[in-house]
Amino acid sequence: MSRPIQTAVVGVTGYAGAELARLLLHHPRLKDAPPVFAGRVDAKDEARGGIPLDEIHPQLGGSLSAGLKQEQFSWQLLKSRGVNVLFLATPHEQSREWVPEALDHGLRVIDLSGAWRLARAANREVYAFEDDGTELAEDVQKQAVYGLPELHRAAISSARLVANPGCYATSVILALRPLVADGLIDLDHEIVADAKSGVSGAGKAPTPKTHFMYAADNLSAYGVFSHRHTGELLEQIGLDAGQIVFTPHLLPIPRGILSTIYVRFREPQSQASVAKMYRDFFAASPLVRIHEKGLPQIQHVVHTCCADIGFQIAPDGRRAVIVSCLDNLLKGASSQAVQNLNVMHGWPESEGLL
Amino acid sequence: MSRPIQTAVVGVTGYAGAELARLLLHHPRLKDAPPVFAGRVDAKDEARGGIPLDEIHPQLGGSLSAGLKQEQFSWQLLKSRGVNVLFLATPHEQSREWVPEALDHGLRVIDLSGAWRLARAANREVYAFEDDGTELAEDVQKQAVYGLPELHRAAISSARLVANPGCYATSVILALRPLVADGLIDLDHEIVADAKSGVSGAGKAPTPKTHFMYAADNLSAYGVFSHRHTGELLEQIGLDAGQIVFTPHLLPIPRGILSTIYVRFREPQSQASVAKMYRDFFAASPLVRIHEKGLPQIQHVVHTCCADIGFQIAPDGRRAVIVSCLDNLLKGASSQAVQNLNVMHGWPESEGLL
Amino acid sequence: MSRPIQTAVVGVTGYAGAELARLLLHHPRLKDAPPVFAGRVDAKDEARGGIPLDEIHPQLGGSLSAGLKQEQFSWQLLKSRGVNVLFLATPHEQSREWVPEALDHGLRVIDLSGAWRLARAANREVYAFEDDGTELAEDVQKQAVYGLPELHRAAISSARLVANPGCYATSVILALRPLVADGLIDLDHEIVADAKSGVSGAGKAPTPKTHFMYAADNLSAYGVFSHRHTGELLEQIGLDAGQIVFTPHLLPIPRGILSTIYVRFREPQSQASVAKMYRDFFAASPLVRIHEKGLPQIQHVVHTCCADIGFQIAPDGRRAVIVSCLDNLLKGASSQAVQNLNVMHGWPESEGLL
Amino acid sequence: MSRPIQTAVVGVTGYAGAELARLLLHHPRLKDAPPVFAGRVDAKDEARGGIPLDEIHPQLGGSLSAGLKQEQFSWQLLKSRGVNVLFLATPHEQSREWVPEALDHGLRVIDLSGAWRLARAANREVYAFEDDGTELAEDVQKQAVYGLPELHRAAISSARLVANPGCYATSVILALRPLVADGLIDLDHEIVADAKSGVSGAGKAPTPKTHFMYAADNLSAYGVFSHRHTGELLEQIGLDAGQIVFTPHLLPIPRGILSTIYVRFREPQSQASVAKMYRDFFAASPLVRIHEKGLPQIQHVVHTCCADIGFQIAPDGRRAVIVSCLDNLLKGASSQAVQNLNVMHGWPESEGLL
Repeated sequence: MSRPIQTAVVGVTGYAGAELARLLLHHPRLKDAPPVFAGRVDAKDEARGGIPLDEIHPQLGGSLSAGLKQEQFSWQLLKSRGVNVLFLATPHEQSREWVPEALDHGLRVIDLSGAWRLARAANREVYAFEDDGTELAEDVQKQAVYGLPELHRAAISSARLVANPGCYATSVILALRPLVADGLIDLDHEIVADAKSGVSGAGKAPTPKTHFMYAADNLSAYGVFSHRHTGELLEQIGLDAGQIVFTPHLLPIPRGILSTIYVRFREPQSQASVAKMYRDFFAASPLVRIHEKGLPQIQHVVHTCCADIGFQIAPDGRRAVIVSCLDNLLKGASSQAVQNLNVMHGWPESEGLL
Repeated sequence: MSRPIQTAVVGVTGYAGAELARLLLHHPRLKDAPPVFAGRVDAKDEARGGIPLDEIHPQLGGSLSAGLKQEQFSWQLLKSRGVNVLFLATPHEQSREWVPEALDHGLRVIDLSGAWRLARAANREVYAFEDDGTELAEDVQKQAVYGLPELHRAAISSARLVANPGCYATSVILALRPLVADGLIDLDHEIVADAKSGVSGAGKAPTPKTHFMYAADNLSAYGVFSHRHTGELLEQIGLDAGQIVFTPHLLPIPRGILSTIYVRFREPQSQASVAKMYRDFFAASPLVRIHEKGLPQIQHVVHTCCADIGFQIAPDGRRAVIVSCLDNLLKGASSQAVQNLNVMHGWPESEGLL
Repeated sequence: MSRPIQTAVVGVTGYAGAELARLLLHHPRLKDAPPVFAGRVDAKDEARGGIPLDEIHPQLGGSLSAGLKQEQFSWQLLKSRGVNVLFLATPHEQSREWVPEALDHGLRVIDLSGAWRLARAANREVYAFEDDGTELAEDVQKQAVYGLPELHRAAISSARLVANPGCYATSVILALRPLVADGLIDLDHEIVADAKSGVSGAGKAPTPKTHFMYAADNLSAYGVFSHRHTGELLEQIGLDAGQIVFTPHLLPIPRGILSTIYVRFREPQSQASVAKMYRDFFAASPLVRIHEKGLPQIQHVVHTCCADIGFQIAPDGRRAVIVSCLDNLLKGASSQAVQNLNVMHGWPESEGLL
Repeated sequence: MSRPIQTAVVGVTGYAGAELARLLLHHPRLKDAPPVFAGRVDAKDEARGGIPLDEIHPQLGGSLSAGLKQEQFSWQLLKSRGVNVLFLATPHEQSREWVPEALDHGLRVIDLSGAWRLARAANREVYAFEDDGTELAEDVQKQAVYGLPELHRAAISSARLVANPGCYATSVILALRPLVADGLIDLDHEIVADAKSGVSGAGKAPTPKTHFMYAADNLSAYGVFSHRHTGELLEQIGLDAGQIVFTPHLLPIPRGILSTIYVRFREPQSQASVAKMYRDFFAASPLVRIHEKGLPQIQHVVHTCCADIGFQIAPDGRRAVIVSCLDNLLKGASSQAVQNLNVMHGWPESEGLL
């Protein structure tokens, strides 16, 4: 591109927003162009030019963030700053409303919400989008590319709207898509994906379930047979409803996802055959690490931008337990967004992410 | 007493309330008289006779709690059930309002809030009680006994109103009162009480500071030079303002308080002399454990009804570090309340609490 | 029984041992007969009559444990104290050696290890018992009753040797045995039991995997296709190898197990039909709590002696996710041992355990 | 310098070693020269050229670390690779032995242990160095510069041996040195430094005190009146023994230190006067952040290379509570080492550390 890249972030106040800001501030290609941070700013803060970034996230304080502020959002603000790439770390309702406008203003958009991830109307029902079925929404949806670079690198490179995947979904899709694509799995036996996530996945709003006393020293299953990420699993892995059971759990840790996935093979497999299959599939993917021995753990991936996959084949070769891990705030959200930014601009996919 | 004891608990929904319910349900003297639980109950729940206790606190489910419910509070309800002892695990504003009425109804009250703990008006300013200075409030305050049995056993035994101490306050007072009473401390050098508490001390309301992501993997100081428990320290230890600096911290654990206390002695002391002093002071106190070697830790006291005290004397004998631990929900709240119940009825002080 | 019950505990130093000591010290039937604690005691400690219990477990300090010590083990010691019931909270190798001797001395034994739980030699291979196949071992094994009172109440009541179940095994068996016994499950589709346990399950020995830095903020799967409890699952639920996949995980919490279990039904079921099935099966079991709405969590069961079971049926009625929780140190070990003690002596099953 | 910088790290297997490796691998000045990792390597691993870095620390896996291994240490190895800067993340006994040899080989050394931090023999007694008093040791000690760049920038720039400070010491010295240097503190009243550290500070060896069950949900004081870092405090702040009481505590978190420090002023101070004093002192220090409002917390600093300092002045202006936080593995160890590397080579002090 001839025009220099100028990013903007809406929603820096959340947990994924903080990590996104950190990554963009350190990105080698964006050294002289820190993001514009935009959002809701009250009158008192507007009088001082916005909310200093280091008040919102003290851990980001220092010379890199000196002088940066979250300013009152307006399309005019973005235009005046020469923004051409917009990250939305906003609730899906807000993304649903703003993405069409952003595209209208000629911006390329990376949306971290669930607003535009699902191609099939049936899968979108859990979100109950008011605009579903309108011509505009259908048109925008058609432009959306599911932002999992390991699956859709080419489409992302030219996309105007990238729908950044869900955190759970990323972890399960990366583990299962290669197996399903290769036709290894006996789909007459349901796949089980038992997933566990740290509390940051539940967002920053104080609720009874994000209270320390609820989450600490505890483990709880939720969203059984009904979690929103199920549609992403079906569409991206290539499964029919009923071919997978997905159960999320709330872990008593700040961040990280581990999915334990149970599959039955059509033909017996070995550690070596499955390892080769994964290696081939991810040969061009610098941010997926295959554990050929041992299983990944949450500690291997938190504070990294990688997804780790390991597996163990049963002695009879017919069944496997696959373990897939990532940091829900990074590969499950913000670093995946930056990975998409890299792909969209032809930069090395892992630049600024290792 | 000739009339059988019938307790009631207002505020069972909180963390201290849950522990109080558990202790009362298991109390040997109350086997055939479970507490009446009273509070706010909406119309839907009133239609089914109240909110089942095991819906409020699933961990309390089982045969002991079968059929028990939180019912809509009214003085008439308490009267109809023959209640004669009322536990208030309510916010201090509510206790401030209800205690005079309860006394009027002839109930003996054990109030777990800060409403009636402070004798001196200056110390009560942090609470900003609207009724302070009224004749009624003054009269009630005069009847209140500070419910630390280790200090006020006799007065508690005949009290109509017991003001159950604060959790931090209990931990610091038990460690310092013996030393100050014996005149050991050089009060020209400020005492430092650096206290750390688990998150349950912050209450059940979901707030930014009780969010798991705020508290977990973190430690923060708060209420520096301004915490509400300071007045209790001054009055109960016998100190002037400025003779102690008290700093609470929020620990990333569910429960437990550890206070590290720094004092200077007027005359050199030894491990043995201080141990003897504590032993003598607490000779009749079954729920205070003195560590003559080593220091207590939070794990020694959580899920127990005991306060543990240990200390180390500097080589020069002039300074000491004292460590005082307790479970903020038990000795810092509910088991202390039951200990007061025992004292009020002439039962063994630790009955139902070991 | 005419002779009074005198218990002894070998292995009080571990985590389950601590809880066992606490329960026995508070047991209403054993008020005047605290357990004899026996184990390895070095010369220095023997000189002072053993290791004081409150040095081993400071949290147990207080009047109930005053004067109690772990003494040097010998059969003579047990005899001299009139011990007739022996709890072994020892490694399985040690239990394997001592149980035959204990039976020889006429003791009734409750063994908390895995030494005598498995009837079939094939399932015992993972333990590699040196004496397997000997006449003595076969004879002892035949006397052993699997100590899950909810399944084997009658046999336990007259057993001389009770093999207390594994913690994971208890959680999975209680959830699945009723369904399999009723023939509800389509066993052509493997059952998946994805289980998660707190770190106390890994024992007190400091190892790389029990290091705080390994376990905290982490989650890891282990023992995939090879965990020792698998044999108990097969024997007690009534399954063939290959009909269940069991994967344990290490949770970053001190205690508690949650098993998420995936089954396919032969015929469609409803929440109501499954609830009724569980209710009927556990009608006489005071320590199993069925959640007819919602799912149990680890916080519901830690520090209780109960196992909690909940479930959710898929919209098509053909699949279910069952969640089973317990405290691995209590219902998964020590309180189950005391429950067996109660059953063995005809006392109410939950006495001292509520 | 004309020769390119080639670093080596001994002790990459520990927690600080892992962070040091990460920082060096990403350092802009060292892009084409990853560190040589050296240590003990057994025969089996030597046969494959050493232990792959991503086996030691899976979180470091990926393209940056591809092919890197820990190789068998020898001076010859370092020489053959052109090493000119040596990081020792080794126990102090080993550093005590190796540093003289390294200097002999012409290497510049940054030693992360406590071996060479203390100028006064009395303060070194806690380490019981066998060579203390020998001419060689005295000579090496004289060359050592205490590696706190905020205090000793100039000396570090030309040092051959930098003794990287202790983690606790860094946190307390940065908070107190400015106040003492300015003569603000009334030293007739002891300073209290109540410090709390995450478990990584205790090292990687599995011990009873690093067991998850010991550290989790707990808090414990240790090293009262005797912690090894006390000598650093005295020498670097400029205090006599007895002018400060320092008490460390073990926090139930992986990383982070928070020190709460209590001082009395000679003359009344205000928030503004103290803020100005700190700002002036640290004007040229990019990695110290002064909180002029509010207090820093552990979450503000973990995974950053900064030390954060905040404070609150008592209403009478005579006393202050100062809170000082840092990440013990970064500013308390490895990033401070890299900061020293930067200073030693005239690079911007925070390069690669923001």
